[in-house]
Amino acid sequence: MFKGKVVVAQGGGPTAVINQSMVGAVLESRKFRNVELVYGAVHGVRGIVDEHFLDLTQETTHNLEMVAETPSSALGSTREKPDLKYCQEIFKVLKAHEIGYFFYIGGNDSSDTVRIVSEEAAKADYGLRCIHIPKTIDNDLVVNDHTPGFPSAARFVAQAFSGVNLDNQALPGVYIGVVMGRHAGFLTAASALGKKFQDDGPHLIYLPERTFDVDTFVSDVKEVYDRTGRCIVAVSEGIHDASGEPIITKLAEEVERDAHGNVQLSGTGALADLLVSVVKKKSGIKRVRGDTLGYLQRSFVGCVSDVDQREAREVGEKAVQYAMWGQTNGSVTIHRTGFYSVDYQLTPLLDVAGKTRTMPDSFIAANGHDVTTDFLMYLRPLLGRGMPDAYRLRDNRVAKVLNR
Amino acid sequence: MFKGKVVVAQGGGPTAVINQSMVGAVLESRKFRNVELVYGAVHGVRGIVDEHFLDLTQETTHNLEMVAETPSSALGSTREKPDLKYCQEIFKVLKAHEIGYFFYIGGNDSSDTVRIVSEEAAKADYGLRCIHIPKTIDNDLVVNDHTPGFPSAARFVAQAFSGVNLDNQALPGVYIGVVMGRHAGFLTAASALGKKFQDDGPHLIYLPERTFDVDTFVSDVKEVYDRTGRCIVAVSEGIHDASGEPIITKLAEEVERDAHGNVQLSGTGALADLLVSVVKKKSGIKRVRGDTLGYLQRSFVGCVSDVDQREAREVGEKAVQYAMWGQTNGSVTIHRTGFYSVDYQLTPLLDVAGKTRTMPDSFIAANGHDVTTDFLMYLRPLLGRGMPDAYRLRDNRVAKVLNR
Repeated sequence: MFKGKVVVAQGGGPTAVINQSMVGAVLESRKFRNVELVYGAVHGVRGIVDEHFLDLTQETTHNLEMVAETPSSALGSTREKPDLKYCQEIFKVLKAHEIGYFFYIGGNDSSDTVRIVSEEAAKADYGLRCIHIPKTIDNDLVVNDHTPGFPSAARFVAQAFSGVNLDNQALPGVYIGVVMGRHAGFLTAASALGKKFQDDGPHLIYLPERTFDVDTFVSDVKEVYDRTGRCIVAVSEGIHDASGEPIITKLAEEVERDAHGNVQLSGTGALADLLVSVVKKKSGIKRVRGDTLGYLQRSFVGCVSDVDQREAREVGEKAVQYAMWGQTNGSVTIHRTGFYSVDYQLTPLLDVAGKTRTMPDSFIAANGHDVTTDFLMYLRPLLGRGMPDAYRLRDNRVAKVLNR
Repeated sequence: MFKGKVVVAQGGGPTAVINQSMVGAVLESRKFRNVELVYGAVHGVRGIVDEHFLDLTQETTHNLEMVAETPSSALGSTREKPDLKYCQEIFKVLKAHEIGYFFYIGGNDSSDTVRIVSEEAAKADYGLRCIHIPKTIDNDLVVNDHTPGFPSAARFVAQAFSGVNLDNQALPGVYIGVVMGRHAGFLTAASALGKKFQDDGPHLIYLPERTFDVDTFVSDVKEVYDRTGRCIVAVSEGIHDASGEPIITKLAEEVERDAHGNVQLSGTGALADLLVSVVKKKSGIKRVRGDTLGYLQRSFVGCVSDVDQREAREVGEKAVQYAMWGQTNGSVTIHRTGFYSVDYQLTPLLDVAGKTRTMPDSFIAANGHDVTTDFLMYLRPLLGRGMPDAYRLRDNRVAKVLNR
C-alpha cells in the first residue's frame, strides 16, 4: 500500500446517486491506516488544478450519509476534458499534496483522464494509484452491464411516461417526449417500462441506434393515431438522419458546441417543438403536444432506485478496496450474476476509456421503433422497489336510452 | 332526498388526485339507499351528451381504491365548454337516464357548466341536485383557500427546482424553468419551496400577476449571475407585457387557440427557448439552459402530497353529503381553520363559477420577482409529509501548497 492522501473527484453530468459513490469511497478510505487524509476536489479536475480541496476527513459520518442520499455532485462537477498538458498539471498538484490515491467518478471522458494521469505518474515513477468509478445516466460505458445513475434516471423516465400515458388517455391526442441520450438510446428505451396495459404508451420509441426518417415517423404516428385515437412517442435527443446529422441541427439557428466538440442537445425544447409542428403539418392531427424531459431526468429530488443507490455506494467502496489491496490501476465495472445480483471487477483503463456503448440489437425491436422483451427483463430489476402502479376502471358500459 | 341515479364526471386538465374526488363521491353515493345506481360519464360532459356511462356500482371497492391512488382522470376528461344549448343536451340525457344527482369535478369552466345545468333543471321543475367538486393545479378558484390538485403539482415543482438547484451548483450557469399557470402564479411560486440554503435557487420568480419586461429580466439575471456565478429562474408560462400580450405570442409563428379562445401555452418549449436566447444575446453569459416542466407537473406518477390526497377524497365525499342532506346546489369549497387544518362548505355556484383567483399581493415580494414568507407559510403544509431534503458538504477548505 502507498502512504499518502486520498483525492476523490466528480466529473461530467450529475446523477441521482453520484454522491453515493463519493461517500462510499470517502468512508472506505477513512478506514485505512495508511491514508493520512481524504480530500474532495471541488468541480472535478478543475478543482485539482486550482488546488481547491475540501478536507473530507473533517466531515461527519452522519452528514456524509445525508449527502449520499442527495442527488447531484456535492463536490461540484466540470465539463472540462483534460488534454495531456492539463493532466500533467493535475499530476503536479497531486504530487505536491502528497496524494497516493486518485479516485475519479465519471463517464467515458473521466475514465480517459484517469488513464492519462495514471500514465504520467508511471513515467515519473511516482506511487499513485488511480481508479475510475463509473457513473453516467446514458449507460454508455463499455464492459459494464449498466452504470450507476442510469437506473434512477430510467426510473424517472418510466414514471414520467406512465403519468403522461394516463394524462393522454384522459385528453387524447399525440404526445412527443424527448429524452436525454446522445449516442445511446437506453434512457429513451426506459420509457417502455411505464407501460402496464396493452394499449398504454409509449406506442413509438425512436433511438439514436437507428436512422430517423421524418416521413416514416409521421406515418408511424398517423397509423397509431388512426387506430387508437391517440399516440405517445418517446424520442431520443440524439436522433439523426442517414448521414448521421442530428435532426435538431436541421432547425437550430445557432449550433452550440461544448469543449468536446459536441452539439448542445439538452437545455432546449427545440427538437420536441420541431417534431410537433411536423406532425401537425403533415398529418392534420390537431392536438399534438411535446415535452422535453430536460434536466429533471438526472436531478429530480425524490425519484431514485434503491438498487442504483446500493450499487453506486458499492462501486465507491470497491474502488478503494481495489486501490488498497490491488497492484494495478483500473476502472471499477459492474457485472450481472443473477436475476437480480451483480458483482464488481477492476478492468484495465484502456478497455473502458473513451469508448461508447450503445443499445445491442437484441434490445431493439425489428420494426426499429420499439424495444424487445429482452430489454424489459434487463431494465426492470434496476428500477428497484416501490415502482408506482397505474390502475383503471373496468369497462362496465351502461346501455343507451336515447340512442341518438 | 331525490330518488334516482348518480352521475359523476371529470372535466378540464387532469391532476394527481382528481380520482380521489371521483372515488370519494362514488363510495359515499353507494352508501345511500335512495341512490339506485352510480354512473361515471366518460370524457366529462361529452360522455353525458353521448350517453357514454360506466356503471360504477359494479366496480369493486378495492379497484376504486387503487384508481383513487392513480393520477389523471380515470373517467377521461374534456376541454369542451358547454354553452346553453349544450347544457340543455346534458340535461336531456340526465333526465332520460333518471339521474337525480350530478357531480362535476373541475375548475372554473366546469363550475359554470354545473350552474347552467342546474338552472335548466330548475326551469323544467326537475328534481336534480347539482354539485361542483373543486379541482385545478392552477389554484385559481375563488372562495377556496386552495384547490385539490394544486398541492401535488406544487410539490412536483418544488422537488424539480430543488434538484435543478443542486444540478446548477455542480455545473454553474443560468437555468430558466417554465412552469404552468396562465393567469395565476401559485404553481410558479411553489418553486420557492425547493430552497433550503440562503444561496439556493430559484433566485428569481416571475409571475403573471406582474408585468414582465424583457430588459429588466435580463438585468435581474445578470445581477444575480455576476454576484453568485449562477442564476436559477422560475417563470410562469403566462407572463405578459404591459399591454397584457403574452410574451410567448411575441415569438410564436402560429398561435394555437383552444375552444375557450385561450392561447396554447403548454406543450411547447418555445417560451423557455426564447428567454434562453435573449439572456445569451443580451448578457453574454455562455451556459444558459432552459426547461419547460410541461405535462409532468400534473401527471408524474409517484409525486403526490398526502394532504392533497386526503382533501381531494373529502371534497368528493362532502359533495355527496351536501347533495343528500342539503336543500341546495353549490360548489364544495375548502377553508383553512388552523396550521394546518381545513373544513368544507357548500358555496353558491354563482360565487365560484367562471371567476379566476390570482396571487394576493401579500404573497408577492415588493421587488416583483420573489415570494413572501406569508406565501411560504401558506404553501408548506399543503405539500404533505416526506418532502425530500438536500444536504451539502461543509466547507473545510484545505490550504494551498503550490499557490499558483
